[in-house]
Amino acid sequence: MRVFNFSAGPAALPESVLRQAAAEMLDWNGSGMGVMEMSHRGPEFMGIHAEALGLLRDLLGVPDGYRVLFMQGGGLGENAIVPLNLLGGNKKADFVVTGSWSKKSYKEALKYGDIRLAVDAARDGLYQGIPPAADWKLRADAAYVHVCTNETIDGVEFFFVPDTGTIPLVADMSSHILSRPTEVAKYDLIFGGAQKNIGPAGLTIVIIREEMLGRAHPLCPSVFNYATVAEHDSMYNTPPTYAIYIAGLVFKWLKAQGGLAGIEQKNIAKATLLYDYIDASGLYENRVDRACRSRMNVPFFLRDEALNEAFLKGAKARGLVQLKGHRSVGGMRASIYNAMPLAGVEALVGYMREFETLQEKVAV
Amino acid sequence: MRVFNFSAGPAALPESVLRQAAAEMLDWNGSGMGVMEMSHRGPEFMGIHAEALGLLRDLLGVPDGYRVLFMQGGGLGENAIVPLNLLGGNKKADFVVTGSWSKKSYKEALKYGDIRLAVDAARDGLYQGIPPAADWKLRADAAYVHVCTNETIDGVEFFFVPDTGTIPLVADMSSHILSRPTEVAKYDLIFGGAQKNIGPAGLTIVIIREEMLGRAHPLCPSVFNYATVAEHDSMYNTPPTYAIYIAGLVFKWLKAQGGLAGIEQKNIAKATLLYDYIDASGLYENRVDRACRSRMNVPFFLRDEALNEAFLKGAKARGLVQLKGHRSVGGMRASIYNAMPLAGVEALVGYMREFETLQEKVAV
Repeated sequence: MRVFNFSAGPAALPESVLRQAAAEMLDWNGSGMGVMEMSHRGPEFMGIHAEALGLLRDLLGVPDGYRVLFMQGGGLGENAIVPLNLLGGNKKADFVVTGSWSKKSYKEALKYGDIRLAVDAARDGLYQGIPPAADWKLRADAAYVHVCTNETIDGVEFFFVPDTGTIPLVADMSSHILSRPTEVAKYDLIFGGAQKNIGPAGLTIVIIREEMLGRAHPLCPSVFNYATVAEHDSMYNTPPTYAIYIAGLVFKWLKAQGGLAGIEQKNIAKATLLYDYIDASGLYENRVDRACRSRMNVPFFLRDEALNEAFLKGAKARGLVQLKGHRSVGGMRASIYNAMPLAGVEALVGYMREFETLQEKVAV
Repeated sequence: MRVFNFSAGPAALPESVLRQAAAEMLDWNGSGMGVMEMSHRGPEFMGIHAEALGLLRDLLGVPDGYRVLFMQGGGLGENAIVPLNLLGGNKKADFVVTGSWSKKSYKEALKYGDIRLAVDAARDGLYQGIPPAADWKLRADAAYVHVCTNETIDGVEFFFVPDTGTIPLVADMSSHILSRPTEVAKYDLIFGGAQKNIGPAGLTIVIIREEMLGRAHPLCPSVFNYATVAEHDSMYNTPPTYAIYIAGLVFKWLKAQGGLAGIEQKNIAKATLLYDYIDASGLYENRVDRACRSRMNVPFFLRDEALNEAFLKGAKARGLVQLKGHRSVGGMRASIYNAMPLAGVEALVGYMREFETLQEKVAV
């Protein structure tokens, strides 16, 4: 009955999480209320909130001196909220553009200050690699450097933490947060929309080094002022309560998968299976540099683009959905986030092989 | 098993809505996916989104020339987003403060321009009435006048639409939107957080006259720029998809209640029952002017405050929860939004009568 859903986000959630959410919809834990109906200030939801926060800190090993905030507005919202909070006096920030998302972040930031490109990785208009950090043009007095550590559309992922010296490092981790262990202490701000690896759209996670708080522009809306949100433990305004509850269930599920080290092994296995098959195939190709191929978002192309529609139709008939690539890139894309089981990738590779064999027969 | 939940928000939802959501959690309409897992650009969610939007327009009778936007950030977010979008050149706005929420809106707006109080209705620090519109000090060249048409904390509701002449009228309707028919054409902007009468926290409804679009401050974040959001049909960034789905189910439920005219009759019946009992009682009192007593939020006090704890304890034992008044006002508050059935108010009044009788016996 359930399909394998390769959507880039909002994306598949663990089935056990959805089953628990359905079972508790009308009555959470004997409270006689569903979670959606609870006052955010009541003891039931305060407990759910605190537990989700604790689990997230624990999973990521968030060190002391960092605050974890539950916010709204998504990754695109943060594209404005980050500069509104961090640019400070000289209003300088440098952007590392390695794909569509970091490019959007750069463009939005332009209106807030003295914003420069540290590097634009485009080659013939396509993003398929990450120039070495030594080649980035960084200003020593920049308020921060922005990177997007996984480009959802282009399938480009950072497997190193850039050393930016004393310049604070801001990372948009929306599409691979919690997919593997992360050295939080090497970043000054991490943000991510929840709708890929965490839970429902409408929740944004922000992890910020405390020293970065209190630099907001006077026009920054209070609900998006990190210092205000931190001071009120993410309860300055009504938080997206149901999304936080679902995120908490996903965090528990992640713990049961062996935490981030455990899920990383599963993600490596899934990505290896898919990339190895693509590389060995005569019909499919992935064009991203091998050193930075995303484990979460695998864009690939059929060498004969005329077969795209037939490929998608056959996939859908086998319960493999949302495989069409982003319109700006074309081709196909399989997003294989934490919640995608190995069986889903096996089914995809099985179908890809079947489709390739069929084409070979047609050609003969 | 289910309690009667008098929370001021997030608040009770219709049981039939929750049942449907639970049933569809793993598989919406044979799609093999839950709504939370759907790409916001896929045909399944696009359909859910369009249907919710159409139902809302239909329920409220939103005229041509108005856009309905699904946003994030809640009512407190709008306190900044509205001035960022509407203040325009001279940056003047006048605020009608009739309670805690409009006071918060006023304070947040102060940082965005030349903001003035048109009136502050406080009497000895308490908000219990609405001064006649003829007494408001409005500037003819103000970009807008802000009112909060239902004060959730104070229990003060507008039962008239103020005539502000040519000055655009902005209304925060968070806590009574969809509780009765509304003459949308008399307003230039209406906003409301969803978590009282519409659905889960994390969704904000904005209804805006098209002429008001395009006046945003250069520093307004793109995701909160009404013109940008309108241009992209509320899909500029990933919308809070699950909250929109639940809102759509609530809209359908409202249609089945006879639309806004139908639900208004039910809301009048509930509020009348509760206020009539309070007014006739020797133990309880409501202090709001009769002409503007809220049908949604009914604050009341026990004449002997020493009985508060015993009252709340007995209520909870009978499955009547979330009756404690807001800390800034004290006493009790029963929020009786659309989803609260008459049976819930009957149960509350029954308990209040029982408790009062008990006190009389103790006194004898």
